[in-house]
Amino acid sequence: MAGNSFGTAFRFTTFGESHGPAMGCVVDGVPPGLPLAPADVQHWLDRRKPGSSRFVTQRREPDEVEILSGTFEGWTTGTPVGLLIRNQDQRSKDYGEIKDQYRPGHADYTYDAKYGFRDYRGGGRASARETAMRVAAGAIARKILGDGVVIRGALVELGGDPIDRDRWDWATCETNPFWSPDAAAAARWEAKLDEVRKAGSSVGAVIEVHAEGVPAGLGEPVYDKLDADLAKAMMSINAVKGVEIGRGFEAARLSGEANADEMRMSDTGPVFTANSAGGILGGLTTGETVVVRFAVKPTSSILTPRRSVDRFGAEVEVRTKGRHDPCVGIRAVPVGEAMLAGVLADHLLRDRALGPRPRGRPEGA
Amino acid sequence: MAGNSFGTAFRFTTFGESHGPAMGCVVDGVPPGLPLAPADVQHWLDRRKPGSSRFVTQRREPDEVEILSGTFEGWTTGTPVGLLIRNQDQRSKDYGEIKDQYRPGHADYTYDAKYGFRDYRGGGRASARETAMRVAAGAIARKILGDGVVIRGALVELGGDPIDRDRWDWATCETNPFWSPDAAAAARWEAKLDEVRKAGSSVGAVIEVHAEGVPAGLGEPVYDKLDADLAKAMMSINAVKGVEIGRGFEAARLSGEANADEMRMSDTGPVFTANSAGGILGGLTTGETVVVRFAVKPTSSILTPRRSVDRFGAEVEVRTKGRHDPCVGIRAVPVGEAMLAGVLADHLLRDRALGPRPRGRPEGA
Amino acid sequence: MAGNSFGTAFRFTTFGESHGPAMGCVVDGVPPGLPLAPADVQHWLDRRKPGSSRFVTQRREPDEVEILSGTFEGWTTGTPVGLLIRNQDQRSKDYGEIKDQYRPGHADYTYDAKYGFRDYRGGGRASARETAMRVAAGAIARKILGDGVVIRGALVELGGDPIDRDRWDWATCETNPFWSPDAAAAARWEAKLDEVRKAGSSVGAVIEVHAEGVPAGLGEPVYDKLDADLAKAMMSINAVKGVEIGRGFEAARLSGEANADEMRMSDTGPVFTANSAGGILGGLTTGETVVVRFAVKPTSSILTPRRSVDRFGAEVEVRTKGRHDPCVGIRAVPVGEAMLAGVLADHLLRDRALGPRPRGRPEGA
Amino acid sequence: MAGNSFGTAFRFTTFGESHGPAMGCVVDGVPPGLPLAPADVQHWLDRRKPGSSRFVTQRREPDEVEILSGTFEGWTTGTPVGLLIRNQDQRSKDYGEIKDQYRPGHADYTYDAKYGFRDYRGGGRASARETAMRVAAGAIARKILGDGVVIRGALVELGGDPIDRDRWDWATCETNPFWSPDAAAAARWEAKLDEVRKAGSSVGAVIEVHAEGVPAGLGEPVYDKLDADLAKAMMSINAVKGVEIGRGFEAARLSGEANADEMRMSDTGPVFTANSAGGILGGLTTGETVVVRFAVKPTSSILTPRRSVDRFGAEVEVRTKGRHDPCVGIRAVPVGEAMLAGVLADHLLRDRALGPRPRGRPEGA
Repeated sequence: MAGNSFGTAFRFTTFGESHGPAMGCVVDGVPPGLPLAPADVQHWLDRRKPGSSRFVTQRREPDEVEILSGTFEGWTTGTPVGLLIRNQDQRSKDYGEIKDQYRPGHADYTYDAKYGFRDYRGGGRASARETAMRVAAGAIARKILGDGVVIRGALVELGGDPIDRDRWDWATCETNPFWSPDAAAAARWEAKLDEVRKAGSSVGAVIEVHAEGVPAGLGEPVYDKLDADLAKAMMSINAVKGVEIGRGFEAARLSGEANADEMRMSDTGPVFTANSAGGILGGLTTGETVVVRFAVKPTSSILTPRRSVDRFGAEVEVRTKGRHDPCVGIRAVPVGEAMLAGVLADHLLRDRALGPRPRGRPEGA
Repeated sequence: MAGNSFGTAFRFTTFGESHGPAMGCVVDGVPPGLPLAPADVQHWLDRRKPGSSRFVTQRREPDEVEILSGTFEGWTTGTPVGLLIRNQDQRSKDYGEIKDQYRPGHADYTYDAKYGFRDYRGGGRASARETAMRVAAGAIARKILGDGVVIRGALVELGGDPIDRDRWDWATCETNPFWSPDAAAAARWEAKLDEVRKAGSSVGAVIEVHAEGVPAGLGEPVYDKLDADLAKAMMSINAVKGVEIGRGFEAARLSGEANADEMRMSDTGPVFTANSAGGILGGLTTGETVVVRFAVKPTSSILTPRRSVDRFGAEVEVRTKGRHDPCVGIRAVPVGEAMLAGVLADHLLRDRALGPRPRGRPEGA
Repeated sequence: MAGNSFGTAFRFTTFGESHGPAMGCVVDGVPPGLPLAPADVQHWLDRRKPGSSRFVTQRREPDEVEILSGTFEGWTTGTPVGLLIRNQDQRSKDYGEIKDQYRPGHADYTYDAKYGFRDYRGGGRASARETAMRVAAGAIARKILGDGVVIRGALVELGGDPIDRDRWDWATCETNPFWSPDAAAAARWEAKLDEVRKAGSSVGAVIEVHAEGVPAGLGEPVYDKLDADLAKAMMSINAVKGVEIGRGFEAARLSGEANADEMRMSDTGPVFTANSAGGILGGLTTGETVVVRFAVKPTSSILTPRRSVDRFGAEVEVRTKGRHDPCVGIRAVPVGEAMLAGVLADHLLRDRALGPRPRGRPEGA
Repeated sequence: MAGNSFGTAFRFTTFGESHGPAMGCVVDGVPPGLPLAPADVQHWLDRRKPGSSRFVTQRREPDEVEILSGTFEGWTTGTPVGLLIRNQDQRSKDYGEIKDQYRPGHADYTYDAKYGFRDYRGGGRASARETAMRVAAGAIARKILGDGVVIRGALVELGGDPIDRDRWDWATCETNPFWSPDAAAAARWEAKLDEVRKAGSSVGAVIEVHAEGVPAGLGEPVYDKLDADLAKAMMSINAVKGVEIGRGFEAARLSGEANADEMRMSDTGPVFTANSAGGILGGLTTGETVVVRFAVKPTSSILTPRRSVDRFGAEVEVRTKGRHDPCVGIRAVPVGEAMLAGVLADHLLRDRALGPRPRGRPEGA
């Protein structure tokens, strides 16, 4: 049943297989009057594709996005924005055993179980290539949110080695191939990842994404809580196995006193003395920074042979050949940012639907 | 904007405030011909309400559910099932300062920020009382799934003290007030929680819910992945701050080799040698047990006074009086089970919509 | 699959069978700060139930609505409004042959075909009694639209006898049992309907509903056009077989010149010299009165015996006994008004989601 | 707010402006294992484009559709099908006064009212060109329905001149440029339309679409009735102002006896002696032919000058220059067929979600 759309008021629908003709996206619900040029989207797509790094194998494709609709003379018109990226790397090639074997940790087996057969070329629809369209949609979401909302992400743990949070410097993220906010961690990871890559192995990672400047009161009780939608957003990214808001699982290890985010008055209104809640209480934003963290499992495609079965029921050994990404989590940083932007834009529009609110309790209430 | 519904093909919509006249639920998409009596729902509601324990403060209410529609002579008819629980504890009382103060860690401030004012009686719509209706909907979801799918939950960590997984015994869950599968842990927790309760403090917890017997292939790529919907489901429960599938965050600390779930053939078809993936690959079930874990923060209502502000902008001290639940996570076990059942029933129906599948690649493919 | 909800941003979900314990409704997406008391809803329910007329057989029930949630001290809070009407007329009685026979023109056969069996008591879920909840939801929709939007309906044709539009007087609608805006037509209909009633026969009707004061620009291209949603809304009412916007089918018989709604400037902005379009162009409102018309078939339950079959495959004769409504269309007037209000409220909220719009083309466009 | 999608289980989302780079469509929910090649879609697109007729002005474009995803080696895979048609006729040209003037009967004014400005090139998103993507989606819907369901449409009235229903011959539809099932009417229309065209005027039309072979029981009570969804589907087509099911408005002029569709037993089960209901009772199919009719207003673009205003508030005269379609209703025939196919495919999948049904009342019911 239809399931390739995300969001409600701001909704994007993607299509495309890794080695099909193209990847595409329709972004519906975009308000009119926003400046939008292909370069605005391309900027974020290019970030997802740091070709200079030896830690992220990339398809040698320009990944040039085309805006097919929804803008007029550089402005959004309120009609759906169609986006397209042609796949160039789709020449017929010999997929050999992959077409019949189930790679452990991949969706090969489950797609066959669900659909009876699958497009086995490069992972088909289950390929991380689909996330390019999320990044494209996220670029438009950022336009809706405006400059007042700053969304950025960082890799905070690689292969079980976390950053030192006291060293957190956003500017550092742009200076290393890992989006690490801690230069020392980046140096350690570089050495480690070289080893991992040579060994044909892989490691996982933890990503943290922040949104600053989000007004208080976004989100919807009860099932469409902002954090519920964020959890869905992040868990829908390939290889993600866990999501946290604010202190996350650590909060379950604290006392009520330690986890309490007390409040004080500031010049600009109520503020919180801590942000254990990650900017969300009761499913609604508090005005503090929204903090989301997610865990990416180690790349399933490794050189070490592993036991599996094929679609005829024979037991086989599977070993990934060719290019190899030692840590897929690195690429997930811009994707997590994009999904955060998408959820916030959706809830900003949803909140607007309520119109002007009463200020304080109505007479007598 | 409308946000009080959960699910797509199997969809439930809840309403009701903690101290309003009633809590209710409409369960839509229920197939016809399932036996359904009030007792089938009441059974699960009663589990959420272990009144015998001193660790779970309960409203002194019968919480008797009434089925208002959707059944005929004991069978579901395919029309929506309306469920109702009257609130008895709704007498007018003096809410004192609570009506104007923002309790730290609660949704008081955010509801005011969103709506301009709020129903302050007992937390209003943000109260955990809403979860009773989730449990009711979950009871119907279980009927749809049938006896072949076994759903059950356990508390696996309390106040930072985890169970010993080698001692895991499902039967033990029914013998202690914590749903602990490890009797030794239950004993430690009992002592600990007595202390916490006396100190007027609180602790968090981690819950794990399992679904056994789920056929392979349930779920939808890309945005409605089964794990994405599960993450949303669990994160939408009050006080939840983190969700994991299978090994979750731990997977991010493993090598690709250690995290690989290899496959072998069994008499009944392909099986996995491990279940790091928690029964889900590429958003679709593998046929292995679906494993979901979520973290519940410590109860925000504690006796220790904390600093806050009121709705007039004055700085205040807030201290919860009266009954007090030292660990809200305990009650979340049946709620997590219900949400797991709801997500699976929804995806079972969604999967059915595709009709009969080809077996293997069509001719020539 | 779930299908008992209507609307997107303003969404209501109904449940309940004609002779089950109760009818209910959850109205989600209601903005906070609107005054709402049971009497506000009851007012419209009572209009649907003109018990004084001999042309509308009514269950002898008070049909008293209860507001179960979503308000606090008389104001909406932004949380879902639960509404309930208890059925009193649900005593077990002998349904005799009806339980096995398919009444021609009813949903008996199709419900059995879909679900395998049905709740045969009083039509079950297919009963027009369900429309009470639409009227209740419509009462809330009117609150959202505010006093600036005036919604009212009239019967414009009964048994093939139309009103004289030159005699249209809204005040007259309140003075006859048919909601006829033409007193002369009402007099003719009274005579005619007495005959029909005595003969045990039935007639159809055409209803027209208007919304004045709707701002220009409501609606969504392309599939959620305002007129598309209105068509769905009206066609979903029991026994409706046709829907028209503005001149409707007559427009197909006019020349382009005759159907053109020319425009001129007025003190308050652009106005139309005619309203053939019924207030909607391209799926969006023009600012002129929204005009919707729908056809209700003659009551299927008549005293004249008709040929049918039963669920065992035997051919039978069916003859409706007991109370009998010679024209179900009469009751449909307040229902059509309610659905019009619901669609407009939904689109008002949806439109708000877009936020402030540019005024005129952005620089350079 | 997002509104460019149609359907629930089978859902398509379209994008594209008349003179933008391309028109596109994403069809989600397509079951796997259906044979699908571009020619399968192109076939129906070509029917929408009978270039040989002087009564339908056409853009001189190949309108070649490309399948971008969702198929593998000629079979659908269960993933979304992306479809694209490039616009060739998008060279920059002088739109002169059109860019500022509101053409009467068009969406120019309402788009400006909603969005603040609009893409004025060729009608932008409001252009009938969008319907090409509906036809494309309908081609896939037909594949889902299979050969057992036959969908076809006819023009039954042009400029107020109806066909003689006794002469109805489906084969005739393919032999005249109007899809008329009555050869004599086609001859009259040809003469009439030549006149209309020369006079620079336009006429409306009524289209009737049929679906034969639809199993009984498709549809959903209460709001997603099959006829409700059909009404929405047809009313969402450009220039449609009325929709009827079965006898439609005529039913409102019949007695209950005359409108009764009596039932008898046949070798294959229950059958109806008439089909006044148009194949739908209580929102669910009866197994008889589904009959839908809709009215298309006369083309708004005519040579006769009409009074209007421009976006600066000046009163103007508008006169359409250049190519001119004397009856847009002709092109609407394949579009109506496609929407009928889309609604039926959606409800077929929705119905499947319920799984196997009980046969007859469960024990004791």
